[in-house]
Formats: sequence, C-alpha cells, structure tokens
Amino acid sequence: MSRMTDTWILAAQCPSILGTVDVVTRFLKEQHCYITELNSFDDRLGERFFIRAEFRPELDAFNEQSFQEGFERRAAEFGMTFELTPPAKRTGAVILVSKADHCLNDLLYRYRTGQLPLDIKAIISNHPDLESLASWHDLPYYHLPITPETKAEQESQVLDIIEDTGAELVILARYMQVLSPRMCELLDGRAINIHHSLLPGFKGAKPYHQAYEKGVKLVGATAHYINNDLDEGPIIAQGVEPVDHAHYPEDLVAKGRDIECLTLARAIGYHLERRVFLYNGRTVVFGN
Amino acid sequence: MSRMTDTWILAAQCPSILGTVDVVTRFLKEQHCYITELNSFDDRLGERFFIRAEFRPELDAFNEQSFQEGFERRAAEFGMTFELTPPAKRTGAVILVSKADHCLNDLLYRYRTGQLPLDIKAIISNHPDLESLASWHDLPYYHLPITPETKAEQESQVLDIIEDTGAELVILARYMQVLSPRMCELLDGRAINIHHSLLPGFKGAKPYHQAYEKGVKLVGATAHYINNDLDEGPIIAQGVEPVDHAHYPEDLVAKGRDIECLTLARAIGYHLERRVFLYNGRTVVFGN
Amino acid sequence: MSRMTDTWILAAQCPSILGTVDVVTRFLKEQHCYITELNSFDDRLGERFFIRAEFRPELDAFNEQSFQEGFERRAAEFGMTFELTPPAKRTGAVILVSKADHCLNDLLYRYRTGQLPLDIKAIISNHPDLESLASWHDLPYYHLPITPETKAEQESQVLDIIEDTGAELVILARYMQVLSPRMCELLDGRAINIHHSLLPGFKGAKPYHQAYEKGVKLVGATAHYINNDLDEGPIIAQGVEPVDHAHYPEDLVAKGRDIECLTLARAIGYHLERRVFLYNGRTVVFGN
Amino acid sequence: MSRMTDTWILAAQCPSILGTVDVVTRFLKEQHCYITELNSFDDRLGERFFIRAEFRPELDAFNEQSFQEGFERRAAEFGMTFELTPPAKRTGAVILVSKADHCLNDLLYRYRTGQLPLDIKAIISNHPDLESLASWHDLPYYHLPITPETKAEQESQVLDIIEDTGAELVILARYMQVLSPRMCELLDGRAINIHHSLLPGFKGAKPYHQAYEKGVKLVGATAHYINNDLDEGPIIAQGVEPVDHAHYPEDLVAKGRDIECLTLARAIGYHLERRVFLYNGRTVVFGN
Repeated sequence: MSRMTDTWILAAQCPSILGTVDVVTRFLKEQHCYITELNSFDDRLGERFFIRAEFRPELDAFNEQSFQEGFERRAAEFGMTFELTPPAKRTGAVILVSKADHCLNDLLYRYRTGQLPLDIKAIISNHPDLESLASWHDLPYYHLPITPETKAEQESQVLDIIEDTGAELVILARYMQVLSPRMCELLDGRAINIHHSLLPGFKGAKPYHQAYEKGVKLVGATAHYINNDLDEGPIIAQGVEPVDHAHYPEDLVAKGRDIECLTLARAIGYHLERRVFLYNGRTVVFGN
Repeated sequence: MSRMTDTWILAAQCPSILGTVDVVTRFLKEQHCYITELNSFDDRLGERFFIRAEFRPELDAFNEQSFQEGFERRAAEFGMTFELTPPAKRTGAVILVSKADHCLNDLLYRYRTGQLPLDIKAIISNHPDLESLASWHDLPYYHLPITPETKAEQESQVLDIIEDTGAELVILARYMQVLSPRMCELLDGRAINIHHSLLPGFKGAKPYHQAYEKGVKLVGATAHYINNDLDEGPIIAQGVEPVDHAHYPEDLVAKGRDIECLTLARAIGYHLERRVFLYNGRTVVFGN
Repeated sequence: MSRMTDTWILAAQCPSILGTVDVVTRFLKEQHCYITELNSFDDRLGERFFIRAEFRPELDAFNEQSFQEGFERRAAEFGMTFELTPPAKRTGAVILVSKADHCLNDLLYRYRTGQLPLDIKAIISNHPDLESLASWHDLPYYHLPITPETKAEQESQVLDIIEDTGAELVILARYMQVLSPRMCELLDGRAINIHHSLLPGFKGAKPYHQAYEKGVKLVGATAHYINNDLDEGPIIAQGVEPVDHAHYPEDLVAKGRDIECLTLARAIGYHLERRVFLYNGRTVVFGN
Repeated sequence: MSRMTDTWILAAQCPSILGTVDVVTRFLKEQHCYITELNSFDDRLGERFFIRAEFRPELDAFNEQSFQEGFERRAAEFGMTFELTPPAKRTGAVILVSKADHCLNDLLYRYRTGQLPLDIKAIISNHPDLESLASWHDLPYYHLPITPETKAEQESQVLDIIEDTGAELVILARYMQVLSPRMCELLDGRAINIHHSLLPGFKGAKPYHQAYEKGVKLVGATAHYINNDLDEGPIIAQGVEPVDHAHYPEDLVAKGRDIECLTLARAIGYHLERRVFLYNGRTVVFGN
C-alpha cells in the first residue's frame, strides 16, 4: 500500500463502456509494466469509469514520452483523460493560514519527515503570527493582511505567488477568509480546504459553536475541494469524534483540532498520490 | 455500571448554586443509602445542575414514601425537581413502526432478553406487514392505516392506545409519518425517534439519498426526542459509519440499518435508566 | 458496491508475475463481460496475486461452461486457481450454537430479510435452548449434547449433517466447544468462528473476564476461519468498542454482544460474496 | 469540561463504606467551595472508592493549608488518601526518546500551545538525533548513549536528571530501551510509556511486524504506567485504527504514528488533570 519509490501512477477516467479496464491493463502489460496496485470504479449511476494503477516498468528502455504518446492513442478511443505521475514526484504547494497553527504545524511535520511528498513553495497568511514556524522549516512566509477594501488586491498577490512558484496545489489550513468567486474559479480542483464540521452540517462561521447550540453528540471535520459555493465543494475526507453535554464550545474547538489535522493530512495524501478523482461535483477516492 | 437489581435511582435537576451536590449526597447518607453510581454535571453556561445517583438502602426500614417526602423538603430549598425510580422498574412503552422491521426486530430482541427493561404495551403501524413479528413476541399489534384525510383520526387512535395502556414512553422505530403539532406537544419529552442521518445534516425525507448526492464520507443516525420542529428535537445519541464513493443510495440504506438499531437502542437504554435530562432544548446524558 | 442481481463473480489467485491482471480482464473483454466491480492485490512479500471481478455478460449467448473452460486454459499458464460464482447464488450453511442466542438471532434476521445470501440447512446445538428461535424461522434444529465421553461421536453426527445437507459453510455463532483436530482439518477454510476478543489478545475461555482483569480500555471481537490452533485461525474481520473502569465483566459481556453480531455478520457477508482469499495462514479481504 | 483557570482539584480514594461521597462534598460545601466538576466511582469488586472534584472557592479567605489540614482530619476517618492540586499547576516532566520523533514533536506542540500543562525540565535520548527539535523549543537535551555495559550508569544519569530537576512525571515517548527493574521501581506510578500495539497483544519488540504476521484487521497503541513487567503496567488509554491485507509492516508503522501520538497525549492529559487513579494494578480514569 505504501508507494514504492520506483512506481509510476496512471490515473484515468472516461465514460462507462465495455473494455475500459482492458484498455489500461493490456497497455501496461504490453509495455512490460508490472502493476503493483490497481483500483477501479465503474459508477453505474454516473455512467463513468475511474481507474488508478501503480506500476513498475520492468524494462530499462521504459520511456515516459513514448508511454504517454502510446497510451494517448488508446485512451482517445474511449474518450479517456489520464495523468501519468513519475516516481518520487513532489507536488508544489502553497499553504494559506490565518492565526490557528495546529493544521500548519501538523502539515510541516509530515512535510519535514517525508510523509507527505510536498514541495512547499510558500506559506501565506493574513496575520504575522506563524512566521517563526515557517522560518524553522526554512520556508518563505508572506504576510498579506486583508481588509474588505484590500481583499481583491490581496487575492491578486496570493494568486501571483501561486503562479510565480508554479504551485499545483493550494492548501487552506484553517485560512479564515472566504475566497472570492474569481479565486474559487481559478483554483478549481486544486485547492483543498479543511472545514471544522461534518458538512453539510454547520456551514459557515463558528461551526463548533453551532454544534454546541444544537447539542450534537458527534463533531467532525471535512476536507474538500473549494468551489464557488461556500463549504459546498466536493468532499475528500471526513473525520469524527464523540462528544457530550460537558463539552463547551471551547472544548469542541480543542477536541476538534486533532480531527482537523488528521482529516486534512489524509485528504492531501490522497490528492498527492492521485487517489482522488473529481467528476460532477463528487469525488471518487481510492483510499487506504 | 450495569445496574444492580436492588438499586434505586434518584435523578434531579435545579439551578446552579452552592450546595447542590451536598443536598443530595447528605440526604442519602442520612438515610443510610449506599451510593453505587454517581453522576453530576454543573452547566456553567445554562447555570443548571443535574445529578443522578444509583443507591442501595442499607436498612430494612427503607420506605419509598418517607424517602420521597423527606427529600421533597430538602429539594424545595434548591428549586430542585427530582424523580425516584425503584429497582426492577420496567417502563411501559408503545412502539410505532411502518414497514421497515430492522429497528423493531432489534428492540424486540433486547426486550425479550431483558437487555432493555421495557414493558411493551402495544406495537402500532400504519401497515400490516410486521404483525407476525409482534405475534411471535406475544405483543398486541394495531394496524392503523393513515391517509391525509384520516391522519387526525388515526393520531387520536394512537393517543388512545398510549393513554389506555398507560405507556410512559413512545418509540418511533422508523415510523415514516410526520406527527402533527398536537401529537408532538402531547408526547413532549417522552417520545424517542430514530432519524437516519447525522442531524442537523439531511433532515426530512430520504436522508441516505441526500447523503449520496452530497458525496459525504460518513453516514449516521440520530436518536432524539421529538418536538414540534421536524427532526430538530433534543439529541440523545448519534452513531456513524464510514462510507465511500462506491456506496450507492441502497448501500447507504443497508449500511445504515445497523447504526440505526444500535443508536436507537442506546438512546432508549439511557432513557430507561434515567440517564437523560432535558433542559432548554438540549440533553444531558450520563452515558456508559 | 451492492451486488447486482445479474452479476457473476470471478475470484482468482496465482503467483505474482507480469500479466496477471491482463489475463483476467482481457478474457472478460473478449467474452463481452462488463466489469462492474474489480479488486486486485499483488502481495509483494508473499509474491502472490489476488483478483476479484464482478461482471455482467452483455451477450445472451453467455455460457457458464464455456466461460469456465475457456478461462481454465488461460489461467493454467499463470498457475492461477479460480472460482466462478453465478448470480443469486445462495451458499448452503450449517450454524453451530450453544446457549447464547445473540449471534444466531442476528444471523437469522439477516437471513430472513435476504441481507445474507445464505441457504441455512440446519442449526445444531449442544443445548436445547434455541429450538424455538429456529422453529420460528422454519429451520431444522438438532440438539446434540456433548460430554467428554461423547465428543467424538457428537462431532461425527455434526459432520454427517454437514455432509448430508451439502453445506459449504459452517458458522460457529458462539459455539462454546473446542473442535477436535480432525474436525478442524475437515472444515479447513470453510468454517467461520466468532471469538469475543481482539485476537491475539485473550484467547481461550472467558475473554471478557480476562479483559477486565487486565484493565483494557477497548474490547472487541474477531471473526476468523478455524484451524487446528485454538483461536489462531486466519482473521477475516475485527470490531472494537471503548470501555472504562466502570465496566465489570458482565458489562463487557453485554457490550460485546453487539460487536460480536456485527463482526460475524460482516465476515460472513465477505465470505459469501467471495471477497475473502486464504493464503499462507492469512486473508486478503476485498471489503466494502 | 475544560478546566477553568481558577479551579482546584481534589482527588481521593479509600475503602468502600457508607458516607464516602458525603465526607468530600459536605466538606466542600462547608468551605464554600463550588463544585464545577465531580466524578466518582465505587468499585464493588475491588471494594474501593475513588472521587475527583474540581471546585472554585467562593470566599476570598480560602486558604490551601487550612483546607488541607481540615480535610485530612475528615479523610482519616475513612482511611482516605487524597491530593489537592492548585489552579494553573504545571507538572514538571522529563521526556525520554530515542530516534523516532513523532510523539516528541506532538508533545512539544501541545506543550508550546498550552494544551498540556507541562513544565518540561529535560529531554533525554540515547541518540543525538532530536536535539534540534528540543533546541527550537528552548529545552535542554541530554544525549546519554546506552550500551549493555553502560546501561546501569546511563540509568543513574537519567535518574539524577529526574531528581535534580524535581520532575514529577517521566514520559517515555517511544524510548526504545527496556528499563531495569530498579528504574521501574523508582518510577512506579509516575512514568508513562506508549507501546505501539493493543496490549496485551504484541508485547515486546516490533509489534507492528508481529501484527502483520498475524494478519490482524486493527492496530493500535497503548499508554500505560510502567512497572517491572515489560509492557504489562496499568493501562491508561488505548487507540485503534482499521487496517487490511494491503498494509505492509512499514504501512502499519506509518499508520500507527498518529494513534501513538493521540493516545500518549490523551493519557498524559488525564494524568496531569489528576483524572487517573492507580489501585491494584489497574486504573480508574475519569476521562473526557
């Protein structure tokens, strides 16, 4: 299950028709690629097929470009889109935070120890508080304050950093700002947020306080791709913890921190290993 | 934790002031009652105190009436309301069902084996399907069909049965009818419903289908007292199970059955053992 | 995920070499069989490959025997063993019980409602207690008492019933007898037991009492194939529940019942849907 | 549930006799101490009573010494031992580690953010690797290598540091050394270890590898007080995660890290808040 250092990933999706598995696995066989992990899902309601293969080329002559071109021809017959990911790929990422540091601290630990194959390009915050944490990990920290008046400009600065660094992934690690529709659109499918409730319950501000008011016996966290509908983007992962009447709002906040960290880290790990597929506002996640 | 066959329960609540614990425990000591289990909670936001004691009288001379009268005087000073429950008390109950039998089957098993100290007075359904299940357990079954036109009359019949049998508790074990406001009011605080979602998410009809549409990664069930606000009554217990993209609505329905049974049984158990306190639209539950 | 009523299952295993996936999926394509669910696992430590496909023949001309024979030739090249399971297959089973009825009650409910595609041939017990439960489900009940002197004879009677009824699966639903080595051998790979602990912790008798003595904070249950080593057979599924100091042994027994039922039912469901593979004393389980 | 900054803790235990609750709560009432949280447990098998009260003195005249002396007289009648803990108490602690940094990193985060009221006096390791982590938190780091020959001497050095710093608690945060019997004895009841398995399963070395061999479907971690019997000390907390056949030993190691961190942090939190009572080789834990 742990990804080997020498395996490639092929992730693909297409409409459901006869032969979708075969077109992938036959090609891998022909190319002398040994499949080390294989997942597929045929969505009979969405009539959509998803497949992910980890494989190890058995011939020294394996060539990325010719594999890519060769498979393109086969995939085209099925209307299949695909992505090929080389071994040891580290995904460039920008992290957005505000003042709360628990998710950032957790992500940086996993980054530092190689648990998450990230190449963190920048940490951006609307507050100065977390700079020293970034510094200790030798990461650039941009303090970009935000006010109603400067919001558009601040977002442009954020987008510039994302573009300049070539980051493929944006992580909102408890970034307490609502992104503008334009920003959401530009980051569609490549920005992951952690919301501190079991969505669709308790959207918006202060979800733990909402949970307290409602008297729920479980609280949780939801990692999802952002889209233009606040806290409504496609869900990648959710975590949950039991609570009771004795948990005041601040206890829910405290208890929730660990779930938020774990849920966000899990979602990012899935994304980085190309285990997540987006289609029609929902995700297919070949988790582990 | 398991209740002994010879223990009484004293459950009480009052405003938060100095001496609330002492007034209870001192009286028990004076009455030579040995406390076998004690739970209390002082709600500093609601400024309300809750206490539950299981105790065993050590003197043969223990007398329920004099205990009751003696404690009433003490409790009055604190504005404390309380309930005294004798050993081996079985609570009279009426169960409402429709066609789905999983919760009923589960409850009847726990009833038959003594896991739930219920005295089931009647099973009422708007469908005839579950009569044989009731019969096998030697329980009266009332088939009271319901149409928009007969709803008021049917509810009157249901209420008559509840009243005639002296049932203290009404269990809605997947009863697929919305109760009228009048019915909700009359059953306030003594009717427990199981809703097949993690409330407040997915209220109303077909919650598993809603959950599928939303693409959640967790589904659950919520046991709550009914009130006049559909699926908004005070929550007693919640259960949860992980799911993924491969769970179609009918899979969620199937997976949810076990959680519904367990969550409803847990809530009823808490209610019967006087572990649940209602205050201000929320519950305090001294669970185990 | 829920199995369609018109899908076949192909389950196979063989040594790990290039082309193991391809040999299966190519054949299915050639036979115009549409794959609705596909799972595979290549065990790089055990150097063993496992695959399970659910598929729907798209041609009316689909013929079981010719599929079987055709695939046998392909499989032979890979040293692959396989099993083909037709739609709507119900597996013949014999259930062994003693006095505790919770697992039996749960299984019979799932059997009656079609949740488990079982064809229960007989219920055998060393006690008479559960006969009425069997009767209500119109199932034959054999009361075969056991003493140290009659153990061999009783086991022969049990084996006779299994053989006479053609049962493929034997379920030990809290059967409180240690099977003889001969019995274990004869039932190798087709008898599932539920043990009321998280194996390998607390093997043998009275595991909840052992758990209490040890002061654990979690209890659980383990469903496993029986083998000749008491409570050491290959594990199929495990379930767990948190407990605390206030749970006396009888509370653990009570709390454990639900986990035992759920864990056993889950393991049987996996087995019946050919999701479990046995190899080298371990299982591969393509769960859901 | 979250401890207020102005509350004291009274934790006590004694033999089970009539009046044990009353002697505590009556005294608190007389001293005008408002109980904000109360937990008690009467162990009917061990015939032992445990109580923990958080309280807030309502009079300015509250005096620790006179409270202590006054309660000592009352407690003596019941053979009750007790401990009084002032508000804002931070417990002095020494942390032992080897090379693995996940638990240390997690503890230091919770220490830095005040989630765990620790006063970390020193970090001691038999390896130099984690010094920079200690430095970033401005904590002294002692690299005390260990060989079979120097084990006794190294332990003496460790004990000296514990004694010199006045540390009340020793945390073994994945310290991969077996402590000598003398060391265990000296640290009895005040050293918490995290073992990476669900004890009593998989004691000793390489528990995840043992778990892989056994093919379990759940792995976990156990936080316990050390005693002279390897991995057999009284359990404080346990955590668990589901796994499957696709988890190789290194995957179990990776997956287990989060559970280890959470379980150790939970146990330490309970210990620091005086929620853990030791008696007869078992714990009573008034968790939250």
